[in-house]
Amino acid sequence: MTTDTRPKTAIVQGRLGGQRITVAGVAKGSGMIAPSMATMLVFVTTDAAIAASALHRILRTAADTTFNAITVDGDTSTSDTLIVLASGAAANRTITGGTDAQKLGGLLEEVCGALAEAIVRDGEGATKLVRVTVGGARSDAEARLAARSIAESPLFKCAVHGGDPNWGRILAAAGRSQARVDQDRASCKLGGVTVMRRGASCRFDLAAAQKYMAGSEISVELDLHLGSGRYTVLTCDLSREYIAINADYHT
Amino acid sequence: MTTDTRPKTAIVQGRLGGQRITVAGVAKGSGMIAPSMATMLVFVTTDAAIAASALHRILRTAADTTFNAITVDGDTSTSDTLIVLASGAAANRTITGGTDAQKLGGLLEEVCGALAEAIVRDGEGATKLVRVTVGGARSDAEARLAARSIAESPLFKCAVHGGDPNWGRILAAAGRSQARVDQDRASCKLGGVTVMRRGASCRFDLAAAQKYMAGSEISVELDLHLGSGRYTVLTCDLSREYIAINADYHT
Repeated sequence: MTTDTRPKTAIVQGRLGGQRITVAGVAKGSGMIAPSMATMLVFVTTDAAIAASALHRILRTAADTTFNAITVDGDTSTSDTLIVLASGAAANRTITGGTDAQKLGGLLEEVCGALAEAIVRDGEGATKLVRVTVGGARSDAEARLAARSIAESPLFKCAVHGGDPNWGRILAAAGRSQARVDQDRASCKLGGVTVMRRGASCRFDLAAAQKYMAGSEISVELDLHLGSGRYTVLTCDLSREYIAINADYHT
Repeated sequence: MTTDTRPKTAIVQGRLGGQRITVAGVAKGSGMIAPSMATMLVFVTTDAAIAASALHRILRTAADTTFNAITVDGDTSTSDTLIVLASGAAANRTITGGTDAQKLGGLLEEVCGALAEAIVRDGEGATKLVRVTVGGARSDAEARLAARSIAESPLFKCAVHGGDPNWGRILAAAGRSQARVDQDRASCKLGGVTVMRRGASCRFDLAAAQKYMAGSEISVELDLHLGSGRYTVLTCDLSREYIAINADYHT
């Protein structure tokens, strides 16, 4: 089974020590899982010359904020694959670390980020791309726990699908995560407009918020006001079409 | 908002030291959460005479295998409530512990179990009651982690909704939990029929399995063959109606 509906490719270029470097990638995947079959497959290539250990290091870093920061339905796959191949054809001095590795890592992260976003956009039944950022957490790790809890909440995903500026479901999902949340300090923005402050509803333009929520790209920001931890998860809404794809499919 | 559609009550009786004891309960709740509003509310009454500390202890025990073992959508509520009131009108000798407390605890668990099951049956959009048991885990705690992961997997819940005997989604959901799982040892039964053994499909009557999965009560048992840990979670399927209820509802 595949429910992929769109080609997912990305390419970026940069310069390293006078040489033009290209990083390109291609991805497959739209549900996180379909047991016994390949699900998410990502192949990234570059012509940069780089030592295997340095390449492994920058790939892990890039994956952490891209492929490891997306969720369609919380159902992780048994067979996700991310492979990078570096040919060395660019003839730059072989990278072993330092600023050159950082620079190539930046290009790699750009390609991985674009592919990860494309996978979520093509998520099973997805009609909206949703960027969930949790800031002000006690640590990045806690921000991640809260952001994932929101991004995987069926109630939140249904609210997004229905275009409802429902900050209560956002705060509730963060509150039941393992992250420390003090509802009397938390504030929430939808598309840059503060809709909740210190755990209570703000005066905001409801019609404008609903119009924003009806769009195809939604940005949610929950600030916990407890520290400087921050993390962003990309997800999509939960629609009847997701049910159709996954209930009507038979082994 | 309430999407409760059925009354949920339970009553049991027993004898304690020559006195007839009655335990009765009533519950409200069908989605796990609707912020700012009361969601699950359970009130249990008994005419037994019992010390507050002993009552608290048996209530916690009863809740653990009943209300804390159900999930509709994984979205826990901010305001679930379970209250027990004991009037002492039965005029039994006041229970402070021991076998009498265990006996009353058994009656309490029976009432809580019946109400918990009624809540899941009335779950938002639910068309099936699903009993997910994980056995053979290294501990009860690990069995619980695996059982919850299965019961909260959107893919598994969609498969149940579609009547698909998809053991792959069951094993995958257990595998991504924090419980230790060795796929080469695990076996899975649907309604008592083994469909998977040592991580591979068995020869089984597919038509019979599909007919079973099309029913309104489904029992799934995953045996990890690693120990004696065991836990059962009650849940329901995930349907288009769930999306309709939660996407079309607006704050």
